[in-house]
Amino acid sequence: MVESLQDYLTSEQQRVNSYVLELLEKDAMLPPSLSESVLYSMRAGGKRLRPILMQAAYESFGGQGEKALPVAAALEMVHTYSLIHDDLPAMDNDDYRRGQPTNHKKFGEATAILAGDALLTRSFSVIGQAKELQPEEKVYLMTYLSEAAGSAGMIAGQSLDMEAEDKESTLQELEQIHNLKTGKLLTYAIVAGAYCAGAGDETLELMKKFGKYIGLIFQVQDDILDVTGDAAVIGKPVGSDEGNNKSTYPKLLGLDGAKTQMNKYVELAHQCLLEANIEASRLQELTVYLSKRTS
Amino acid sequence: MVESLQDYLTSEQQRVNSYVLELLEKDAMLPPSLSESVLYSMRAGGKRLRPILMQAAYESFGGQGEKALPVAAALEMVHTYSLIHDDLPAMDNDDYRRGQPTNHKKFGEATAILAGDALLTRSFSVIGQAKELQPEEKVYLMTYLSEAAGSAGMIAGQSLDMEAEDKESTLQELEQIHNLKTGKLLTYAIVAGAYCAGAGDETLELMKKFGKYIGLIFQVQDDILDVTGDAAVIGKPVGSDEGNNKSTYPKLLGLDGAKTQMNKYVELAHQCLLEANIEASRLQELTVYLSKRTS
Repeated sequence: MVESLQDYLTSEQQRVNSYVLELLEKDAMLPPSLSESVLYSMRAGGKRLRPILMQAAYESFGGQGEKALPVAAALEMVHTYSLIHDDLPAMDNDDYRRGQPTNHKKFGEATAILAGDALLTRSFSVIGQAKELQPEEKVYLMTYLSEAAGSAGMIAGQSLDMEAEDKESTLQELEQIHNLKTGKLLTYAIVAGAYCAGAGDETLELMKKFGKYIGLIFQVQDDILDVTGDAAVIGKPVGSDEGNNKSTYPKLLGLDGAKTQMNKYVELAHQCLLEANIEASRLQELTVYLSKRTS
Repeated sequence: MVESLQDYLTSEQQRVNSYVLELLEKDAMLPPSLSESVLYSMRAGGKRLRPILMQAAYESFGGQGEKALPVAAALEMVHTYSLIHDDLPAMDNDDYRRGQPTNHKKFGEATAILAGDALLTRSFSVIGQAKELQPEEKVYLMTYLSEAAGSAGMIAGQSLDMEAEDKESTLQELEQIHNLKTGKLLTYAIVAGAYCAGAGDETLELMKKFGKYIGLIFQVQDDILDVTGDAAVIGKPVGSDEGNNKSTYPKLLGLDGAKTQMNKYVELAHQCLLEANIEASRLQELTVYLSKRTS
């Protein structure tokens, strides 16, 4: 019997959580405060969207077992480091994340910077030490992770995003920021999953395109939820994006325009899956899920 | 004719500088301010001690050509990232480094944090993309870099060092901090160089021991120079270590005791080279050089 999507999400979350926490709890980190700080942010939860997408891509191309799991764990560690650093006073200056004090509010700025550095650094050896991967696979996955997370990827996105504050961005500029800041790691999830299952170059290219659309779907829905989410009053801005001068899809296109734009991305994403012959896969289910999520 | 040590230091500095700057200048970093910030710190100079030690170890075990150069560049990028983050207000709060404003004084804290993150992230793909290394070699060198730089290595050292501020440390605690904070990356330089030249496991273990002594020699001489350096008045503290409550070798052992301790390390380092049959190598010359350096 095929697991329901909700059960799948829950079981994949649990699987990656167990793996990554067990791994980090075993690490001989010094001093104890650094270890506590790293574990605090890893334990804080979150959707584990990137590991779930990676496993779904892995399975969609016939992968079985836990080969992709260390790579998924490494990716979630990179994502977590980026949240710790983005929350810092010099960056977004956030006091809370997921209802808990941010890492630097709890452990101080110095430890938060080092905890982020530690997670980023550790992510590479998690892949390097993976038992089921061949050396060439490890090199591909580590090198690509460095590129996706680096100064032409996620770091560029965060840097551009900060420069864009209090400025009106065009739709093109907005998409560039999202493609870099969230799209590159989401794409990594999809491509790495397909790669671990043995997908060829042509398929990986299709998955790069698919990952980009997934990133955009994720972001447009984020912006839409900021307007319609909690109060559920369509067309009446209630969210935090309005207050600051951040460009969003609803601001640039109107709420209906944003929804139309998202449907276009959903269609384009589906097209990629069709071309890759996996149109009825878990990835298609996740595409629809992401476009309709309410939190 | 064998190059003099001074010529060797200069030519190796130039070689790694050209390589790393050309590589980073070609990178498509966004936005320009991030690129400028990364290049600013990489161009700020420094002794390039780690790349020099790596190349010397490589040559001492018969290595020829540029096989180790990308690894040396990656290591120097990791070292540079650590300086940028260590200088931050939340950490050591330094305004100047090598006579220039620190990265965050010049570009702001947010960009400095991201520039450090970018250098750390990029270092792994520099090794991953190296032309002369085999996949298994890349995996070894990337995984080991992650371990040496991570939360059981350099990051642990920086974290312990901050916790030790304004506290009296024992000699044992002091050595632990130095072994982690500077020793791990210096050891990486030696071991990675030997590894690139094809050294076997037993030799690599000897080089790990040698690297540890090199790290300690470096640090004791640092502490001694802080006392005797500029004013050249032996036994009369003139340096910055006295002002803050940092533990140093001269404080714990007296100046003569610190010198005796260093000579012991020099002897132990030499013993490792003897056992590895490279007692007359560039590494021996560098050991003596580091124990007698005046800057």
